[in-house]
Amino acid sequence: MTAYVERLAQASRENESLLCVGLDPEPHRLPQHLRGLPAHEAVLAFNKELIDATCDLVAAYKPNLAFYEALGPEGMETLRATVRHVPNGVPVIGDAKRGDIDNTMRLYATALFDVYGFDAVTASPYLGRDALLPFLDRADRGTYILCRTSNPGAADIAELDVGGDPLYLRVAERVPTWTSHANIGLVVGATAPTQLARVRAVAAGVPILLPGVGAQGGDLEASVAAGVDQTGDGLLVVVARQVMYASSGLRFAEDARTAAREIRDRINAARVTAIDARRGR
Amino acid sequence: MTAYVERLAQASRENESLLCVGLDPEPHRLPQHLRGLPAHEAVLAFNKELIDATCDLVAAYKPNLAFYEALGPEGMETLRATVRHVPNGVPVIGDAKRGDIDNTMRLYATALFDVYGFDAVTASPYLGRDALLPFLDRADRGTYILCRTSNPGAADIAELDVGGDPLYLRVAERVPTWTSHANIGLVVGATAPTQLARVRAVAAGVPILLPGVGAQGGDLEASVAAGVDQTGDGLLVVVARQVMYASSGLRFAEDARTAAREIRDRINAARVTAIDARRGR
Repeated sequence: MTAYVERLAQASRENESLLCVGLDPEPHRLPQHLRGLPAHEAVLAFNKELIDATCDLVAAYKPNLAFYEALGPEGMETLRATVRHVPNGVPVIGDAKRGDIDNTMRLYATALFDVYGFDAVTASPYLGRDALLPFLDRADRGTYILCRTSNPGAADIAELDVGGDPLYLRVAERVPTWTSHANIGLVVGATAPTQLARVRAVAAGVPILLPGVGAQGGDLEASVAAGVDQTGDGLLVVVARQVMYASSGLRFAEDARTAAREIRDRINAARVTAIDARRGR
Repeated sequence: MTAYVERLAQASRENESLLCVGLDPEPHRLPQHLRGLPAHEAVLAFNKELIDATCDLVAAYKPNLAFYEALGPEGMETLRATVRHVPNGVPVIGDAKRGDIDNTMRLYATALFDVYGFDAVTASPYLGRDALLPFLDRADRGTYILCRTSNPGAADIAELDVGGDPLYLRVAERVPTWTSHANIGLVVGATAPTQLARVRAVAAGVPILLPGVGAQGGDLEASVAAGVDQTGDGLLVVVARQVMYASSGLRFAEDARTAAREIRDRINAARVTAIDARRGR
């Protein structure tokens, strides 16, 4: 199997996109015509239509596991069927943010990579390198490590001062050296563009997964400018609610497609501006 | 519903125990006679026998979710059935170590507390206070926050120097103030008794969940001495493999009971020694 970053790069090139659509549906927010179904079936029907309508516009999809775990064991069937429904060639990131001791992470790796079939996952840095190795040792899969998250309280721990630098910056510098496979990325929220720029400066070539645009209020253009690498790549912009809930009627998938295309195009425009700026034009 | 700490204290008193048995079975390590069954059925049969054999000797049980997620959606059915099998009065801790933004943690709270029915959970501090509030706001449930874990790489991040103190100590001081409900505990590994003593010193009355005794090599007596509070309580000693795999034949549950009783009694002896030492006897 080719490396995750290569598969991601190929999908990104083919669909001319840095957009990653979050698949985080809540049953009570689904279109009216799906609400008669059992929750896990409604979510699966919703996801399938959403994927069919957007899969030529995205670089990746990202289901967050919480939304499926909340539906019980049946929700996990829906998660597995959702991953399987994504066309080959479009990577799927399991947003799980797991972090446990190595013996346990081995089991999480089995669950996420083998049982559910994710191409990449998110994980927490808190337990250190040995805890992450069961993920990092999977050379063909990617792992995005939490660095500076998008929530208001992100600063409580991740911005504590560690020898003159905030903790998140230490994570950005140190964690990508924890494996020789080029399969580590970082999670940095769009709600903090200054911090994002600092991360990009110390982790020049490291892929960044960027949640927080849209419903959470992050500025798309500022984030793309701060987050892309020298070639205008190395960034995945996550949008979930703005696409999933673009409208709530029978045309929801069509409207989701329109929303996804608009966001993709805005990202690409911001990308061109960013590359030009870096070239000093 | 009474608060988690009260339910835990009652189970601990009734069973004269600070022992928390980890329910983390791996199918290939189960007794031979169970291995003919589908993995998720074998695990459930194993858990039920183990619980029946030990439930009057423990203060709590602690299934780690990774071991069930690795078995697919059927594994989550096994997890739910396992929690239900534990007798009323014995709390069950869902070792999930979740950490995500608040919107997502709301869904994890639903999954862990409502769908699977845990009395308490474990969580990561990395995302800060607002991310934990959906857990902490559940006044009747407990949340143990990762502080200083038991794995060899725990120092990589958690011992970074934050203004003269290691990060884990800052977590121990700060996080328990994040809610006015007395429902926060800390996870501190038995493999680091010096760090455990420092945590206990700054978080005098905070419940500690202590993994790392047994298979991971932590010293039971030293950990109990360092970890109990002034009254000899406030500590749960987690043992999983030493009890689960006490033997591998038809008598596995009986042997697990013997192992659980021995460990419980060793903990209680160490507890008496610790109380006497603190009273200066």
